[in-house]
Amino acid sequence: MFIEGRNAVREALQSDITINKIYVDKNLEHRRDEILALASKKKIKVEYLPKNLMDKKSETKRHQGFIADSVDFKYSTLQQLMDNTKGETPFFVLLDGIEDPHNLGAIIRSCECAGVHGIVIPKNRACLVNETVIRTSTGAIANMPICMVTNLKEGIDFFKENGIWTFVAETGGDDIYSKNLTMPIAVVIGSEGKGVKQSLRTYCDGIITLPLMGKVNSLNASVACGITIFEILRQRLNKGSK
Amino acid sequence: MFIEGRNAVREALQSDITINKIYVDKNLEHRRDEILALASKKKIKVEYLPKNLMDKKSETKRHQGFIADSVDFKYSTLQQLMDNTKGETPFFVLLDGIEDPHNLGAIIRSCECAGVHGIVIPKNRACLVNETVIRTSTGAIANMPICMVTNLKEGIDFFKENGIWTFVAETGGDDIYSKNLTMPIAVVIGSEGKGVKQSLRTYCDGIITLPLMGKVNSLNASVACGITIFEILRQRLNKGSK
Repeated sequence: MFIEGRNAVREALQSDITINKIYVDKNLEHRRDEILALASKKKIKVEYLPKNLMDKKSETKRHQGFIADSVDFKYSTLQQLMDNTKGETPFFVLLDGIEDPHNLGAIIRSCECAGVHGIVIPKNRACLVNETVIRTSTGAIANMPICMVTNLKEGIDFFKENGIWTFVAETGGDDIYSKNLTMPIAVVIGSEGKGVKQSLRTYCDGIITLPLMGKVNSLNASVACGITIFEILRQRLNKGSK
Repeated sequence: MFIEGRNAVREALQSDITINKIYVDKNLEHRRDEILALASKKKIKVEYLPKNLMDKKSETKRHQGFIADSVDFKYSTLQQLMDNTKGETPFFVLLDGIEDPHNLGAIIRSCECAGVHGIVIPKNRACLVNETVIRTSTGAIANMPICMVTNLKEGIDFFKENGIWTFVAETGGDDIYSKNLTMPIAVVIGSEGKGVKQSLRTYCDGIITLPLMGKVNSLNASVACGITIFEILRQRLNKGSK
């Protein structure tokens, strides 16, 4: 999706919209400009094009020297995630700092397959929805509402208020296969390497743990998420709770 | 691991050993040489170094202008995979054409966590063990014997002869959660995109299928493998068959 014109591009750069690249009129190269400073600060790639190519690229023909190529993805609200359950037993995933876009894309695919109703991601220190995520999700993202929150506790509080049990998938908790997971549920998945933050572990209703039989015992984050949510799905299918 | 000397490097290039890079004496640059032609054919990177740096890099000090930096990984035989069960109920994974080294690395990690006794991969049209695979496996590869076969049927035949049931993880088969999977088992996992070859599907004892609740319903290959082998592990732990 193209955002065009000086003001629109500046606003886009100041917002949470994911921008892949901005195209700037070559005549503005090496000039001091607020937009170029913002792009540099946010580490967004800038491509300088001659005016005739800018004109060609422009959809509105009113680009004023600035076109932002933004990711056409609209985040949902927590309430919209809730509305997406449509009478089914709620099933949500919260991601605590997944940084690799390939992992995020794979997780979105798994969630779509497992019948998850929505995903919550934090705004900072985590991968947001960008072009790689959309591509890696192989279309699954179109059916999966994603909510971006400042702090995951915001999401956990919301789910708790709506009668949903919150669990952390992490080592050192209850055996996932012995625990009944057929209730309305939101599960927090940790990041590769760091796992789930200690503050969140104690904030949730419990910890569920996969058995690990090896010596190294290190699962890829998207694989761990897949195994966890499919165990929840398995229990639900067996119990007929959905 | 360094392989040094003209003949040794030529033989390594003609074998199945994975070579990351070859170092060649700078004086040989732009010369017609059988080794350089082999390296180019196999798309192996060549770095030209002055003689003093070649001498410094050499461990044997008899490099003759050629050093190959090879991946220090030794494939196992099918019998060695079998021996690795050490009295436990056999549990093997065969991979039908996984091409992405990150997926192969993640699968090796999952197999190590799930207590799989060995992995069989085909020689052609699939990712072999290279540096990326070893790195992505985060150490798990040290505990996971991997056998390379010309045709996966070779592995399936061997497992059948040893009283092991062979299943294909694929769509259109029996529900994985209803099927008893506690017997000695070898499971064939398909590649991203193509799945398991038709010829193998009919060659095995059955097809096991994950339930998919979405519209897109496309799981990443390493995630699908993780969910499948952890369901086998779950059944084994519950039944106490291992």
